[in-house]
Amino acid sequence: MTERGYTLSELAPLVQAELVGDGSATITGVASLPTAAPDQIGFYANSKYHDQLLATRAGAVLIRAEHAQDCPVPALIVKDPYYAYARVASTLHPRERAAPGVHPSAVVADDAVLEADVAIGPNAVVESGARIGRGTEIGPCTVIGRGARLGENCVLAGGVQIASDCIVGDNAIFHSGVVIGADGFGFAPGPEGWRKVPQLGIVRIGNDVEIGANSTVDRGTLGDTVIGDGCKLDNQVHIGHNCRVGAHTVFAGCSALAGSVTLGSWCMIGGQSAITGHIEITDGVTITGMTGVTNSIHEKGIYASPLPAQPVRKWRKNAVRFTQLDAMSRRIQALERELAELRDQIKQDD
Amino acid sequence: MTERGYTLSELAPLVQAELVGDGSATITGVASLPTAAPDQIGFYANSKYHDQLLATRAGAVLIRAEHAQDCPVPALIVKDPYYAYARVASTLHPRERAAPGVHPSAVVADDAVLEADVAIGPNAVVESGARIGRGTEIGPCTVIGRGARLGENCVLAGGVQIASDCIVGDNAIFHSGVVIGADGFGFAPGPEGWRKVPQLGIVRIGNDVEIGANSTVDRGTLGDTVIGDGCKLDNQVHIGHNCRVGAHTVFAGCSALAGSVTLGSWCMIGGQSAITGHIEITDGVTITGMTGVTNSIHEKGIYASPLPAQPVRKWRKNAVRFTQLDAMSRRIQALERELAELRDQIKQDD
Amino acid sequence: MTERGYTLSELAPLVQAELVGDGSATITGVASLPTAAPDQIGFYANSKYHDQLLATRAGAVLIRAEHAQDCPVPALIVKDPYYAYARVASTLHPRERAAPGVHPSAVVADDAVLEADVAIGPNAVVESGARIGRGTEIGPCTVIGRGARLGENCVLAGGVQIASDCIVGDNAIFHSGVVIGADGFGFAPGPEGWRKVPQLGIVRIGNDVEIGANSTVDRGTLGDTVIGDGCKLDNQVHIGHNCRVGAHTVFAGCSALAGSVTLGSWCMIGGQSAITGHIEITDGVTITGMTGVTNSIHEKGIYASPLPAQPVRKWRKNAVRFTQLDAMSRRIQALERELAELRDQIKQDD
Repeated sequence: MTERGYTLSELAPLVQAELVGDGSATITGVASLPTAAPDQIGFYANSKYHDQLLATRAGAVLIRAEHAQDCPVPALIVKDPYYAYARVASTLHPRERAAPGVHPSAVVADDAVLEADVAIGPNAVVESGARIGRGTEIGPCTVIGRGARLGENCVLAGGVQIASDCIVGDNAIFHSGVVIGADGFGFAPGPEGWRKVPQLGIVRIGNDVEIGANSTVDRGTLGDTVIGDGCKLDNQVHIGHNCRVGAHTVFAGCSALAGSVTLGSWCMIGGQSAITGHIEITDGVTITGMTGVTNSIHEKGIYASPLPAQPVRKWRKNAVRFTQLDAMSRRIQALERELAELRDQIKQDD
Repeated sequence: MTERGYTLSELAPLVQAELVGDGSATITGVASLPTAAPDQIGFYANSKYHDQLLATRAGAVLIRAEHAQDCPVPALIVKDPYYAYARVASTLHPRERAAPGVHPSAVVADDAVLEADVAIGPNAVVESGARIGRGTEIGPCTVIGRGARLGENCVLAGGVQIASDCIVGDNAIFHSGVVIGADGFGFAPGPEGWRKVPQLGIVRIGNDVEIGANSTVDRGTLGDTVIGDGCKLDNQVHIGHNCRVGAHTVFAGCSALAGSVTLGSWCMIGGQSAITGHIEITDGVTITGMTGVTNSIHEKGIYASPLPAQPVRKWRKNAVRFTQLDAMSRRIQALERELAELRDQIKQDD
Repeated sequence: MTERGYTLSELAPLVQAELVGDGSATITGVASLPTAAPDQIGFYANSKYHDQLLATRAGAVLIRAEHAQDCPVPALIVKDPYYAYARVASTLHPRERAAPGVHPSAVVADDAVLEADVAIGPNAVVESGARIGRGTEIGPCTVIGRGARLGENCVLAGGVQIASDCIVGDNAIFHSGVVIGADGFGFAPGPEGWRKVPQLGIVRIGNDVEIGANSTVDRGTLGDTVIGDGCKLDNQVHIGHNCRVGAHTVFAGCSALAGSVTLGSWCMIGGQSAITGHIEITDGVTITGMTGVTNSIHEKGIYASPLPAQPVRKWRKNAVRFTQLDAMSRRIQALERELAELRDQIKQDD
């Protein structure tokens, strides 16, 4: 606990660290190297911050073996300081949890099932047939729709909406404004307008998934929209209907999948990038920010498309040239041909 | 109803279909051709799935006349199988509706008007002077602002916000997190900062409009923001103040209109595309995904601007060249001139 | 007040205007020049609308001195008509405010502090330790988290979420669906998946900040995310963790800052543009719409990157050429070299 803190000797085994220095010092929190006090621990992972390491007053530093000799304070030697830092920070600063129980202002249907230690916040709503797993916390004004099922130890912030029949695994963290299971975007055009195609599938979310504020995942049309274990979605991400996302794939802010995309595991989708519908992207693909993907990607790697920002006058000239690019290419071809002809002619003249 | 089902003879007239085969079979639901059981109906519209047609175990297939001879099961012959499918699916799987009535936890102002068969969900709020049309359903934690008016048979999911005085037609479907009528983005710059320009108009939405999760439509500055009949907005779409959108125009996910755009009817705006303020786009224009539109479009057609994603090393080289594009163009021009001069010189030499 | 109205003699000193014409006319509202009635006031700032000025029936026009002779009705002569208009419009059309008091359906923690004249709407939630400043209005179904603090005279619409411990200054206007203080996007990759990095900072928002519908500002990792005084954010803007935004910077709809961006004051960020993480942008920078910024900007000015929309057939050819741009550049270089060689050869031949 933060108040009591942990000694370095207690923290070391949590992260399989070798302790160099006095293990009896008590650590109560994490901090960055320049601001850390003697009861706080920091991490060092990037040689750019070497000066900060040399000057730190932290109680200890999580650090790789090859840098430990430069550490002016006790060191916890680990393979991956940032990964270890995440573990230590979570231990020293556990998420404050709501007390179990149903707030009197919440509306819980009679036939909803709440497992042990569930916390339902003020003005939340749990509709008929929903099931909330052990230790899960539902924030204020959050709505769990008919027949939806949440796993254990989930934390849903205030103002989250889970639509009917959707299924969420254990340890989910959904931030405010997340909408799971709204209808996918399906309409058939006809002479009098667009006719709605009923969205009959659900959303199925694995374990250990975190979804950022105001992100949306639409329900499937006939089958389901599936988000694999360990996926992490930043804010304002949009996942269209029928997408299937492999495990441990991450989405930066404002990125979007159109419908029926099959996306591999351990992919990284950059901010404000967009992936068009009905394509497949294999495992381990990274898409940089603001990139548009319109074709399937079968080879692991990094893919990009955006143009760099330029001062507006330079940009304006170049952007106009872009609209002439095909013509430019044909002019180059013509030049190559004419130059070759000229050369031939000169040779003959010689 | 799903439980009872419909015979093929009952379904055929709903979609002006010619039935080929036994009309007495009962159909209880829709499914895709590969998964459909004998009490389910599918559709066939794309020759890419010809194998699935040949192998289907569906109870019937909605299909065009020219493909009907390949259908191994009873066929409902129609002009547009997907459009007919939408109708049949809606009939077999009607949206589950909330029972009429006001949930005791909802807060409805004394002078709000609820027409017959209105359903107001738990913890919803209907403010003073609002009017809700017959058969309309307001989801949990949804807020209808002062003086707002909703038509008949609308379905507002949980967590929707309709700001004061906005007007919505009949048969609207608004998904969770939709915000209608927030202030438009209007500020006048002055020496001490930006001064707010009051947004005094409303949002006026036609009949048969569907709006996806977390989309926003801002109220007008002096006049109104108008969304025409039959428009469909996907998730996280943003419509700025004073826009006027014609009937049956559709917006894919994360697309945006800046302020004061006049957009025609039957347009299709691709995902994550953006249309700059104060321009006009005529009827029947399609904007592909991730396209930026900065000038008015007076001619029907398809418009695009995004670049294709490439492996990052190729992309980096090409993106750098883009910043030199104007210079490249001038070098081509110089080459053309110099080559012509050289040719002239050689001619003279001859 | 709108009902009573103001005489022109009363309005003139509010905007340091020189009145030309009869000051006794009563003005009850604002309108555009073509629609204004004799009890309404308009403004004239753009010579594009000169015909509208000549034909207006408005009760008065806010106008610059050099145009006043063309004004057919009483004129209020000011330096900046639009800025003056904003002031007059706010005076004639004050925002309708909720009556102070706590709605019986709201849930306010016993130890939350509500200063004088606070209004808490139906089904709103104010959690333990929160503090709401004098005259602030909390909309329906809005949630103020544990220990959060709001200044005076703020207006939070319905469905806003302020997470624990975040701090908001005076005169904030937050529209529906705004989420302040959700966890930033921080995960450390490990062999078994992404481990959450606790987000221990808060969001700190200055005075006079307006934030549009469904925008999100994430809390800091160790330090805070900071939005300066007078900033204005349009709808669906995303500000990542640890960003520091200077005073009076404005963000158009759907723009995004990734994490740890330091952005100056008086910047203008265009719609759907995105700024990558860990960079610095100086004061007074304008980023046009749909621009991606991936490097720090140290010089004031306008920056851009998007390509113009083109008819799809032209675009397709040009976009393909873009993927060959580096090769094109090398072909130009080769041509230049070969042409020079040929010229040398001819010279030698001569």
